[in-house]
Amino acid sequence: MNLIIREGTKKDMPAVFALIQELAEFENEPEAVQISIRDLEKDGFGTAPLFSCFVAEIDGTIEGMALFYNRYSTWKGKTIHLEDLVVKKSSRNKGIGKHLYRKVIEHAKEQGCQRVEWVVLNWNTNAVNFYKKSGATVFDDWQTVQMDKEAIDAFCSN
Amino acid sequence: MNLIIREGTKKDMPAVFALIQELAEFENEPEAVQISIRDLEKDGFGTAPLFSCFVAEIDGTIEGMALFYNRYSTWKGKTIHLEDLVVKKSSRNKGIGKHLYRKVIEHAKEQGCQRVEWVVLNWNTNAVNFYKKSGATVFDDWQTVQMDKEAIDAFCSN
Repeated sequence: MNLIIREGTKKDMPAVFALIQELAEFENEPEAVQISIRDLEKDGFGTAPLFSCFVAEIDGTIEGMALFYNRYSTWKGKTIHLEDLVVKKSSRNKGIGKHLYRKVIEHAKEQGCQRVEWVVLNWNTNAVNFYKKSGATVFDDWQTVQMDKEAIDAFCSN
Repeated sequence: MNLIIREGTKKDMPAVFALIQELAEFENEPEAVQISIRDLEKDGFGTAPLFSCFVAEIDGTIEGMALFYNRYSTWKGKTIHLEDLVVKKSSRNKGIGKHLYRKVIEHAKEQGCQRVEWVVLNWNTNAVNFYKKSGATVFDDWQTVQMDKEAIDAFCSN
């Protein structure tokens, strides 16, 4: 297997978009993806890019990706948030995900980040166990809160 | 009460730092803050700032702050993450926190963000109820995962 892990470029966004869609389906949210390939091209590669990504390529085809960006902890300073790590269903169990995961963590170390953070669905036991085994901590006491566009508009009109 | 909510500047970082320390104590983690005032000045006000903040000022004294930054959702695009919202203990129950909260959400709307996101400690019932009442959703199924510097170093050396 001729696997290359490299930084994703603008040209890779159609393949990255397909992986985002595949992940949404895995998470039982097939209709959730509201962004487009064009948005990824614009948002990831302008003067103030909102994300970076690594792609996993086998024989010229992208089989997986990890998308991430900086966050800021008021305890630790600059951190990396791993937003998505996806491997094509047909290419799973070949270690591709592990290579992408390692690349992100090594990148965080190179950048002097004090933390890599992400979220996991609590029913995704395989992922939870993999993360714990790698040395990460899964927190039970922090809950994610989100206010989406509709709620933002409703809140602001009050 | 002469309350002004305004964007935080470099000069405000000593007061912002004091509020960060106060929040860490409230969260039973008094030793957790590893950054300095200097770090805040550097990280928030360079060419690629890692965060922004609003401060709540009463008669020239900063009594609260909300610190936030952009994140990127592969479903929704650009979002805002509210990292900290703190009001000095001596100034609570005056509505200052609500004003800061509203300012952040209005800012998200102005910026065209599709989501504001943050985390809450599940034992902080007052906060959970306030967020829900304001139209936000608290998720039970997503868990926070973190790999900190020590674990990053150990992982990378394997």
